Amino acid sequence: MHPTLWVAAWVLLLKGCAMGQATQAASARTDVRDCSAEPPYLPPTATNTTARLAALRATMRAHGVHAYIVPSTDAHMSEYIAERDSRLGWLTGFTGSSGTGVVTQDKAALWTDSRYWTQAERQLDCNWELQRTIWVKSIGQWILEAVPVGGNIGLDPFLFSIDSWNSYSQALHGSGRTLLPIETNLVDQVWGDERPPPASSQIYSLPAEFTGSSWQEKVARIRQDLEQHTRHPTAVLLSGLEETAWLFNLRGDDIPYNPVFYSYTLLTNTTISLFVDEARLAAGARQSLRAGCPGPLCVELLEYGRARAHLHQYTQGNVTVWLGTEYTNYGLYGVIPQEKLLEDSYSPVMLAKAVKNTKEQELLRAAHVRDAVAVIQYLLWLERTVPQGKVDEFSGAQHIDALRRAQEHSRGPSFQSISASGLNAALAHYSPSNRSSRKLAVDEMYLLDTGGQYLDGTTDITRTVHWGVPTPLQKEAYTRVLMGNIDLSRLIFPPNTAGRTVESIARRPLWDVGLNYGHGTGHGIGNFLSVHEWPVGFQSNNVPLTAGMFTSIEPGYYRDGEFGIRIEDVALVVEAQTEHQSGEEPFLTFEVVSLVPYDRNLIDLSLLSPEQIRYLNTYYETIRARVGPELQRQRLEDEYHWLQQSTEPFPLASAATIATTMATTALGMLPIASLLSALLPGLQA
Amino acid sequence: MHPTLWVAAWVLLLKGCAMGQATQAASARTDVRDCSAEPPYLPPTATNTTARLAALRATMRAHGVHAYIVPSTDAHMSEYIAERDSRLGWLTGFTGSSGTGVVTQDKAALWTDSRYWTQAERQLDCNWELQRTIWVKSIGQWILEAVPVGGNIGLDPFLFSIDSWNSYSQALHGSGRTLLPIETNLVDQVWGDERPPPASSQIYSLPAEFTGSSWQEKVARIRQDLEQHTRHPTAVLLSGLEETAWLFNLRGDDIPYNPVFYSYTLLTNTTISLFVDEARLAAGARQSLRAGCPGPLCVELLEYGRARAHLHQYTQGNVTVWLGTEYTNYGLYGVIPQEKLLEDSYSPVMLAKAVKNTKEQELLRAAHVRDAVAVIQYLLWLERTVPQGKVDEFSGAQHIDALRRAQEHSRGPSFQSISASGLNAALAHYSPSNRSSRKLAVDEMYLLDTGGQYLDGTTDITRTVHWGVPTPLQKEAYTRVLMGNIDLSRLIFPPNTAGRTVESIARRPLWDVGLNYGHGTGHGIGNFLSVHEWPVGFQSNNVPLTAGMFTSIEPGYYRDGEFGIRIEDVALVVEAQTEHQSGEEPFLTFEVVSLVPYDRNLIDLSLLSPEQIRYLNTYYETIRARVGPELQRQRLEDEYHWLQQSTEPFPLASAATIATTMATTALGMLPIASLLSALLPGLQA
Repeated sequence: MHPTLWVAAWVLLLKGCAMGQATQAASARTDVRDCSAEPPYLPPTATNTTARLAALRATMRAHGVHAYIVPSTDAHMSEYIAERDSRLGWLTGFTGSSGTGVVTQDKAALWTDSRYWTQAERQLDCNWELQRTIWVKSIGQWILEAVPVGGNIGLDPFLFSIDSWNSYSQALHGSGRTLLPIETNLVDQVWGDERPPPASSQIYSLPAEFTGSSWQEKVARIRQDLEQHTRHPTAVLLSGLEETAWLFNLRGDDIPYNPVFYSYTLLTNTTISLFVDEARLAAGARQSLRAGCPGPLCVELLEYGRARAHLHQYTQGNVTVWLGTEYTNYGLYGVIPQEKLLEDSYSPVMLAKAVKNTKEQELLRAAHVRDAVAVIQYLLWLERTVPQGKVDEFSGAQHIDALRRAQEHSRGPSFQSISASGLNAALAHYSPSNRSSRKLAVDEMYLLDTGGQYLDGTTDITRTVHWGVPTPLQKEAYTRVLMGNIDLSRLIFPPNTAGRTVESIARRPLWDVGLNYGHGTGHGIGNFLSVHEWPVGFQSNNVPLTAGMFTSIEPGYYRDGEFGIRIEDVALVVEAQTEHQSGEEPFLTFEVVSLVPYDRNLIDLSLLSPEQIRYLNTYYETIRARVGPELQRQRLEDEYHWLQQSTEPFPLASAATIATTMATTALGMLPIASLLSALLPGLQA
Repeated sequence: MHPTLWVAAWVLLLKGCAMGQATQAASARTDVRDCSAEPPYLPPTATNTTARLAALRATMRAHGVHAYIVPSTDAHMSEYIAERDSRLGWLTGFTGSSGTGVVTQDKAALWTDSRYWTQAERQLDCNWELQRTIWVKSIGQWILEAVPVGGNIGLDPFLFSIDSWNSYSQALHGSGRTLLPIETNLVDQVWGDERPPPASSQIYSLPAEFTGSSWQEKVARIRQDLEQHTRHPTAVLLSGLEETAWLFNLRGDDIPYNPVFYSYTLLTNTTISLFVDEARLAAGARQSLRAGCPGPLCVELLEYGRARAHLHQYTQGNVTVWLGTEYTNYGLYGVIPQEKLLEDSYSPVMLAKAVKNTKEQELLRAAHVRDAVAVIQYLLWLERTVPQGKVDEFSGAQHIDALRRAQEHSRGPSFQSISASGLNAALAHYSPSNRSSRKLAVDEMYLLDTGGQYLDGTTDITRTVHWGVPTPLQKEAYTRVLMGNIDLSRLIFPPNTAGRTVESIARRPLWDVGLNYGHGTGHGIGNFLSVHEWPVGFQSNNVPLTAGMFTSIEPGYYRDGEFGIRIEDVALVVEAQTEHQSGEEPFLTFEVVSLVPYDRNLIDLSLLSPEQIRYLNTYYETIRARVGPELQRQRLEDEYHWLQQSTEPFPLASAATIATTMATTALGMLPIASLLSALLPGLQA
């Protein structure tokens, strides 16, 4: 799936371009708002926010707040959030997964990244200005202009990570404006009874066959991390929902697409406190957690809402609490005295979770084989039905979801399927709806970015296809995106390499001809957890790549108003076999575990180097060897045949390659002549 | 020249390896200390520091300091420093350009990076432990273990940048130890009369023909930056010596190899204060600076030592001071109230200086043509004299220095020449001395990393050569280093690309076979200023690459105890010609301005791709076109002939390439057969 965070430089780079194009097209388009028209034009997709804003402004006045910041996340910095936490969505109408709103008495603005600019223009009404950047500096600047010296900038401290709180603090530093934490959320006050209730569904233990190790083993390992750290922390605070779910091998469904549940954990060297709605725990789960009571492996169950008070009490003692500043909220952080804090970007649980053990690797590999079956079924189905004009983006998305659900251990999609035809795919993030869904056609490209949750693993794959005759630019761009995917996938690199320092390898074939893409190149992924699993990936705040990590590799290319391309696979970091070795540890490379062939119709073989073709052929052999038997087991004979056709080896030396070799200098002709005489001994006779 | 800062990950990576090798070799080597021997063994290159340490410790006791930190830099964070500022060198005996010493009552330790580990083992006595890392976290950890809670950690606030001060502050945060700024330098107290006196030589104006614009134009431009900044700063504080030298087009020789002079500048929107020893200003320089008096372009000349007091007074008013936190010292920073600070990594002067205008580009290009002449003379001279056994590393370094000095506008070398034969080149940084100098031999590799100061520009180039039969590994490693150099040099990339995200391109050919190098990939360079000019380059703290910036590109490979390879060129960032364009601004690429051919004897052509060979041939055409006429102008006929030979185009299709193409799959043979029939129509008849 599309990466969440974008390299800031690309966002800046693309900003001007996309803005220019939006302006040009504005008058001709009826799907986006036009606030400069008289009267302002709003598409049917926009939400009227006038009453909500008026109510919020009244509450702000009551609290003496001059600007109020509304982020898109929840108290756990979750990427996907429950409806109940969709405060920004309710207030603005904008339903993109990432954004920030700021409201003053006479202004309101929304900041979001380039994935969502068009979507925002479709969903916002004219109460809101759209800011095409995500930099806190820019938000701070806007606030400085909108709020006079002496003003209060209000926010809910539970909805800001330590790092983002600090960014706001720095942006307003020395400006005479005060950052004012208000524990009562003002949007919730206004939302009132209409706000959805808390989740009530069951929280359950993952069967042992689907876990890499028992929760007791995981606890022991983290306690070892505590002991071995030079600062000797006494506890680790888990604020990310995946941290608690992973640690205890528990799952729930409080949040769409992510099998997690609202919780915090305080794991100390002697105790374990799990803050959760105890009534929701399945009997088996409760039994597992309480089996070690009393003792160091007894899990004390406490109310979710008690986390802050408990932490406050715990930190009265001679303790040191270790936490991850990237995602722990400022509301909890604020109760811990500075000298009792051990701050890292990520907790040791996040880092342990990121490196999958052998069993977890096998589980994830197995999930990807079944996932490939569903995607292959879908691609073949498209080939048959698209020419009949029977498929649109929405029905296509429903079909791939259904095919996945039919696979063993399926627990539904891992994110909202992106099924985008023609120009819609140029919105790197786009999901069709019942209301607006473009028909798939043989003369347009189609981009499918989908994934599944299975008890053994989470998947995420993007394929772009064309059933007719692609334009030369489409073919060149697709091939260059593929070359980037291949070059990064086959990269050999030293241990301790940060993803951000090598992701240019995936961009280079596009850069060569002046093309690029405006998003990151990949993200970690979980074992039946999040489809975007931090801190793995190719962004600046990701940790170095280590054997056992899984990451997506997903270059793309988007041409506004025309088409979009993305080719995404999930890959496991593995040890590489190299002739030499610098350093004590082996070099690393990737093993691609997504197993679906690329569209041959879009590949311009003459652009590929022999090494790229060789890699592709080896990858196709792997697909055949691993997915072929599963297709046969499932008696999918047509799909098996399709797979064999689609994975035929490519000729290593294409006509173009030979032509290049022949069109050489006079000096270069010499060896060719020698070779010719060797190949054709009769010639000279 | 070797880059100053190293990607931390590589340092860590190489640490284990190099340590292992050092341990293995320790017993057999007499050139390094062996503190575990009985009695400890010290080579003649080590300095006895017992008395100095005893004196420092007494002073520390008098100041109530439990640990004292001694950095290797001066108050301007200069990379090269005057003898007078070589406190670390005097105290430890270690003369490497980068390191940190910490002394307690019973311990002393030196931290330095991998370039200097062997040198440190040669120069330190057994009073000092060597720490093979440069992380402040590691220094902090050592201090926490060595100094009990309640202890004071003393340091000279003028010798620490704001950023490094903050790093120490963070490393000791909440630990119960206090970071104690002491304005009297304790090492200076102990050094006493033996400390060299301050510089007294003349400070002069650069002739207009060698400047890109007048100092008045530069001042106007920086004042415009002040005005246009959203925070509306009223002044910029210049603490880097190159900042003041560049701004006023002044030069001096207070520091070896860098034509700068001790100074600070406070440039406000209405005044200009230059803190310098006025008596040292040449008449013309003084006149130029005072020509605009009184008025906004009048330079007020104040004593160097008055900077802190003047800044204190200025910041009593309603002002905002803009400064660069990477290199402004904490001693000055500390007098500015927080709310009157505008902090960036680099001042606007640093950023303006980094982007050369058209005239500055032409000047730098011209300097590189004459520099190439000197290097070519040297390479030919080596070819003739090395076989006779007449050259050693030291006499070689003297010869290249002399050849450069003979070129027009020369002002001597831009750094101490690195002239390293055989295993000495494995020390990525190595300079020969009179006392220890290895003979150059036809059966060893030789690495030459040298540069010149010219009135029109600063140069820096590394060539590695072999006059006999290189081993297969030497040839492969050299070729892969060259491939990395070529691949980065010909890279096309979008505007706003950070160097650190693309330097892996230069490493990839080495990574492919498990090799790597433990230093950065390049650094900025000045117009008759520093050979390492921040903030340009490929490190994590460098700014994005912009057209008009110059950077070195210098991958390498080092095999401890055997040989070392580095291939370094200086390149200008220029706009690229691309078929398409994403974004509003053109993509960028490099124009290599170093103009000396590589050693053909070390290139394994079969490893190069056709694109790499094509690039190489085009580069060689440029060398011929630009250096050839200059060689003829200087009547260097032999060198001209040598250049023609050395830049013969390489055959585009090497035997190996063709062989690869032919050794193809059955499918791949088809187009070959067609081509054969097209080429040889008579064959089928």
